[in-house]
Amino acid sequence: MEKRTVEMALLLDFYGELLTEKQKEYLDLYYNEDFSLAEIARPRGITPQGVRDLTRRGEGILRDTETKTGLLARFTQISGTAGEIREKLQRIEARTGDETLTPLFQEIYRDLETLDLG
Amino acid sequence: MEKRTVEMALLLDFYGELLTEKQKEYLDLYYNEDFSLAEIARPRGITPQGVRDLTRRGEGILRDTETKTGLLARFTQISGTAGEIREKLQRIEARTGDETLTPLFQEIYRDLETLDLG
Repeated sequence: MEKRTVEMALLLDFYGELLTEKQKEYLDLYYNEDFSLAEIARPRGITPQGVRDLTRRGEGILRDTETKTGLLARFTQISGTAGEIREKLQRIEARTGDETLTPLFQEIYRDLETLDLG
Repeated sequence: MEKRTVEMALLLDFYGELLTEKQKEYLDLYYNEDFSLAEIARPRGITPQGVRDLTRRGEGILRDTETKTGLLARFTQISGTAGEIREKLQRIEARTGDETLTPLFQEIYRDLETLDLG
């Protein structure tokens, strides 16, 4: 996936519920299901341009919400921190050599996974 | 601070930028600076009821945004997970007894602090 598509899929995951049902549905089909504008338009009896207008409006709302709140950036930061913690923990684990601690390390790795985005 | 006040302060931190300047300002004075409705109203030449109407509307928007996106709940969950990781890490540290690892443990504790809310 292209970077912009990934970003829009994340924005949709974060703020999709702030959109109208139609905006959310079309953006989901376009960015997550890889439908073309024509494929979204045809079964609904509307024009690709009509779909484009609606998705543009939705994208504007999503971007505007992120510009104002910065919450996706905050989550992205958390995911990065989780990755750093994982890496440091692996260095600690490699140096302890105490196998009875393995289950505890595993638990933390699982905890860290829940901090990853998406 | 009362639980509801803490919750509103967090909602304001998360979604405050989605409000009008006035809604944000009055809610900040009321929840973060502990001003009374009368104290907010007086210097502005408006009634306490006028302030109340405006803050009520703002509170509604904040709550509605959280109901739709659930992002504060997601962050609260992350904070909890960070606490659990910290606790498990302390158990590991207590059992390794290798002091050359201390700086690495300290780094992770600092990383975890950045995952705390507020």
